[in-house]
Amino acid sequence: MTEIVLTTFDWVPEAPRGYVRDLRVRCALEEAKLPYSGKTTPFRARSEEHLACQPFAQVPWITNGATSIFESGAILLYLGGLSATLMPIEPAKRINVIEWLFAALNSVEMPSVPWSLFKFTNDETDTPGRRALDGFLNARLERMENVLKHREWLAESFSIADIAMSDVMRLVDRFDGVAEFPAIRAYVERATARPSFAKAYADQVAHFAARD
Amino acid sequence: MTEIVLTTFDWVPEAPRGYVRDLRVRCALEEAKLPYSGKTTPFRARSEEHLACQPFAQVPWITNGATSIFESGAILLYLGGLSATLMPIEPAKRINVIEWLFAALNSVEMPSVPWSLFKFTNDETDTPGRRALDGFLNARLERMENVLKHREWLAESFSIADIAMSDVMRLVDRFDGVAEFPAIRAYVERATARPSFAKAYADQVAHFAARD
Repeated sequence: MTEIVLTTFDWVPEAPRGYVRDLRVRCALEEAKLPYSGKTTPFRARSEEHLACQPFAQVPWITNGATSIFESGAILLYLGGLSATLMPIEPAKRINVIEWLFAALNSVEMPSVPWSLFKFTNDETDTPGRRALDGFLNARLERMENVLKHREWLAESFSIADIAMSDVMRLVDRFDGVAEFPAIRAYVERATARPSFAKAYADQVAHFAARD
Repeated sequence: MTEIVLTTFDWVPEAPRGYVRDLRVRCALEEAKLPYSGKTTPFRARSEEHLACQPFAQVPWITNGATSIFESGAILLYLGGLSATLMPIEPAKRINVIEWLFAALNSVEMPSVPWSLFKFTNDETDTPGRRALDGFLNARLERMENVLKHREWLAESFSIADIAMSDVMRLVDRFDGVAEFPAIRAYVERATARPSFAKAYADQVAHFAARD
């Protein structure tokens, strides 16, 4: 049997530590207890070899034998196919997990990461575009609050969709953006209380700190 | 055999016409020559029935017999599984299509739609957050330009990944954001020259105009 190899940066600055996208993949691997090893690619000097594996010069990507996959969403879906712990096998249940995975990455993260850029840069300038962006994120959070009031996890049980959605919400929470959404905050707390998250988070932080 | 039913709004204002997300689903259905019929949900009064099918009160969703799917990315993936015209069957090729599908929806559309909100509102205020957002989009476009210089379609042949990516880029092009990226512009032109796009676009525009 081949072994999964996860590639991330050799080092990143302090600010993104604990938020680099390999975290989502680590969570899935820990949750499913899939053995894996780590490799690194330089953060400062991004090479042609890096681009060949990840066309945006980002991380992570994984390999499993001859298979190489970039985009954390695609990696989560692939790992979901390897473990019923991450994604059920029954087609209707699988579709439900997949639609929520896309919801996290396309409907919610589309406003949340750009919104976080304004927060990161301490930019509170009130402009029409900014109001539109804040309104976009708020509309998504209101709907998610409504959804999460009535369920523990997005699908029937914890899945790759929750790994993605809770991590998306965790960044919003970092900038106090879920203060008015108690069900979202409780969901983030439930997800980050899982041993798989604790291990993945500690591993990522230790990995980047070791190269300081 | 069950029939696919695509639900979109009954009407939308002029501005988003030709850009509502059911377009991507229509493109896939036309490309694969999958028969389908249309249903509508009110744009102005969004009901509990609507939320039960699409938790963000957005469109589209599809049904196929007892299966109901929201998120256009999840729908594209589902339709890809129904037709080798949209997604190859061989696992390695399928992974390649799926990673590019996520790239379109998570890596590129994440900055492009928020960027378009600033364009829509004619907001050109130069602030730190705005510079970060513009830089984020530009970094993605530069990498995509590099990718598209060397290939006709993202994977080995036209696929659901191209339906998503070309539509993401089409919105950027609407606000003249790909002027400096000739390979991206040529890619959008190739994709929108396909009969499936022409039919899907005309159908969407006619659908919304019919309810004016």
